[in-house]
Amino acid sequence: MAVYTDVSDDELRAFLAAYDIGAVLSLKGIAEGVENSNFLLRTDAGQFILTLYEKRVSEQDLPFFLTLLEHLNARAITCPLPVRDRQGSALSRLAGKPAAICTFLDGISVRRPAARQCGLLGEALAALHLAGADFEGKRANALSIAGLRPLFERASARADSVQPGLAAETGRALEELEQAWPEGLPAGIIHADLFPDNVFFLGDRISGLIDFYFACNDAYAYDLAVCVNAWAFEPDYSFNLTKARALFAGYERVRPLTGIEISAFPILAQGAALRFMLTRLVDWLNVPPGALVKPHDPLAYYRRLRFHRQQKTAADYGRQ
Amino acid sequence: MAVYTDVSDDELRAFLAAYDIGAVLSLKGIAEGVENSNFLLRTDAGQFILTLYEKRVSEQDLPFFLTLLEHLNARAITCPLPVRDRQGSALSRLAGKPAAICTFLDGISVRRPAARQCGLLGEALAALHLAGADFEGKRANALSIAGLRPLFERASARADSVQPGLAAETGRALEELEQAWPEGLPAGIIHADLFPDNVFFLGDRISGLIDFYFACNDAYAYDLAVCVNAWAFEPDYSFNLTKARALFAGYERVRPLTGIEISAFPILAQGAALRFMLTRLVDWLNVPPGALVKPHDPLAYYRRLRFHRQQKTAADYGRQ
Repeated sequence: MAVYTDVSDDELRAFLAAYDIGAVLSLKGIAEGVENSNFLLRTDAGQFILTLYEKRVSEQDLPFFLTLLEHLNARAITCPLPVRDRQGSALSRLAGKPAAICTFLDGISVRRPAARQCGLLGEALAALHLAGADFEGKRANALSIAGLRPLFERASARADSVQPGLAAETGRALEELEQAWPEGLPAGIIHADLFPDNVFFLGDRISGLIDFYFACNDAYAYDLAVCVNAWAFEPDYSFNLTKARALFAGYERVRPLTGIEISAFPILAQGAALRFMLTRLVDWLNVPPGALVKPHDPLAYYRRLRFHRQQKTAADYGRQ
Repeated sequence: MAVYTDVSDDELRAFLAAYDIGAVLSLKGIAEGVENSNFLLRTDAGQFILTLYEKRVSEQDLPFFLTLLEHLNARAITCPLPVRDRQGSALSRLAGKPAAICTFLDGISVRRPAARQCGLLGEALAALHLAGADFEGKRANALSIAGLRPLFERASARADSVQPGLAAETGRALEELEQAWPEGLPAGIIHADLFPDNVFFLGDRISGLIDFYFACNDAYAYDLAVCVNAWAFEPDYSFNLTKARALFAGYERVRPLTGIEISAFPILAQGAALRFMLTRLVDWLNVPPGALVKPHDPLAYYRRLRFHRQQKTAADYGRQ
C-alpha cells in the first residue's frame, strides 16, 4: 500500500485544468503499487488512475513506460492507457513529482490463483510478448543477471541475520547462475513483474494487466519464469505442478517456446527467484524508521530458489 | 492512510452474495480513515465504500453509528448511507472483522479551508445538530472532560520527552478545565471529529460529511469548538479570525447559540484542544514498530490550547 505524496485540492484543480477530462468529483489515495503514489480520480468524464512517480522510478524512463502502454493498448492488450493533456503530453508534474493520468481498469486481483487462472495468465503473457514485438522503445533490464551482484553485495554482510547460512548459499547460487546464464534467447518487451497483484480478473477472463514500471527488453522465457515463481507456488512454498502446467500450456497456446527457451528454463527460474529474493532482502535489511510499507519476506523466494536448484528440465515444471 | 486487513477475492464474493448490489467489478483499498480499513467497491450497481472495523472501534457501538447514518440520511444530511443485506442487516462480517457497505459520496476534502468554506461548514454542522435532535440512539462521549484524565495519566510520565514542561502545563490546564467545565448546555448528537478530512466539497457546496465513528451525545457547542480548532488555525498555528467568524456566522444562520453556549465557548475550545492533544500524545508515545500510520503531531494542539487559555469570550473568536 502506498500514498507517499499528498495532493491538495488546489494543486489538483490546477493540474487537471491542462486536461480535457471534465471537473473532478473525487480523489482517493489507493493502496496499490509499492513504488508510486496512486489515486483513484473520478471526474464527470469517468474514472481514472492518477500516478505520482516517486524516487524509485527513474524519471527518464517514464516516456518509455507511457509510450509502451499506448503501444500495447493499440494492439488490444488491456492495460492502463495514458491520457494526454491538451498539449499532447502524457507526462506532467503534480506536487513536485512527475505525474500521469491513465484509464481505470475494472477487475479484481486474485490472492491464490486457480490453475485455470494460471492458464489465462499464460495466454495473456504470450499475447503481451507478441504485442510488444514491434515496439521501438528500448530499456535494459536493470535487474537482469548482471544487476544481481551489486544487490548481493549490498545485502551479503547482514544476510545471515535473516537466516544463518543465507549469504554463503546465495553467493554460490549467484556465481553458478553468472556462469550458466543463457545467451541468445528470443527477446523483446517483457513485463518483468507480472505477479497476481498486477493482473485483474472479471468473471472468467483477464480484464487488465497493470504496473508496467519494471517493463524492459529481456528474454521472453525469463518473464515466463517470473510468472511460474509468482503464480505456481502455494503460501506454504510448495510447488503446484498443476498450476505451472496450466501456465506453460496457456503461454504456448499463443506463443510456442523454442528449444533453447525450454532447455534454459530451470536456470531462468533460478534467476527470477534470486532477483526477487535479493531485492526483498535489500528492502528487508533497510526498512527506514516509520516506513509506510512492510517489506515482503525474502525467504519466500529463497525457498523457491532452493526448489529450482533441484530441477533439471522444463518438464520438471510441467511443460509438456 | 489505512488498510489493515486484506480481503481475498473469494471472501469478498462470498460476502457480497448476501447483498443485492450486483457483481463486483473492482475493489481498492483506500487511504482514508485512520481507525478502520476502507475499500472502494465498484459493482455493476454502482460505487460503494466497504469498511472493515478494526479494534479501535467498539463492535457494540456499530449499530449506533449505522442507524445514526440512516437517521441523518432520512433528514437530508449527505452522509454515507449503510446498505442493508437481503436479511435487512446493515452490519455483517468479512475477513474476521465487523464490516458494512455504505454509499459512496463524491467530493474532495480541502487541506486549507477558505473562510467561505468555513461558513458552509458552520451551516452543515448546525444542520447536523438539528437533524440528530430526534435520534433515539445514545452513546456517551468517551473523550469528554471525564475521559481526559486517564489519557493524561497514560502520557504524563513521558510527555516532557516531546517538549520540556509539557506534563506540568497540561496537568494544570486539565485541572482548571475539570473545575470550570460547564454543565447543562444544549446537547444531542454531535460528530465530535469534523476535521477538514471528513468534509467533502463539490464546487461551491458541501457534498458530504463522513467518518461518524466518534459521534456521540454531548454539547452542541463543544462540536463547534472542535471545528474552530480544526478549521480556523493556519499551518503555522496562527489563529485566523476571519475563518472563525465565518464558522460562527454559518452555524448561527441555522441554529443560533444560546447565552450559556456563548459564555462557555472559550472553555469548550480549550477542552477540544486538550482532547486532540492528549489522544495524539498517547499515539505519539506509543507508535508500534512497523506502524502503517504516522501519528499526528500533538504539539499542534498544545499550541492551540495555549492560544485558547488567553481568550476570554466568544467575541475573541469572532462570534458577533
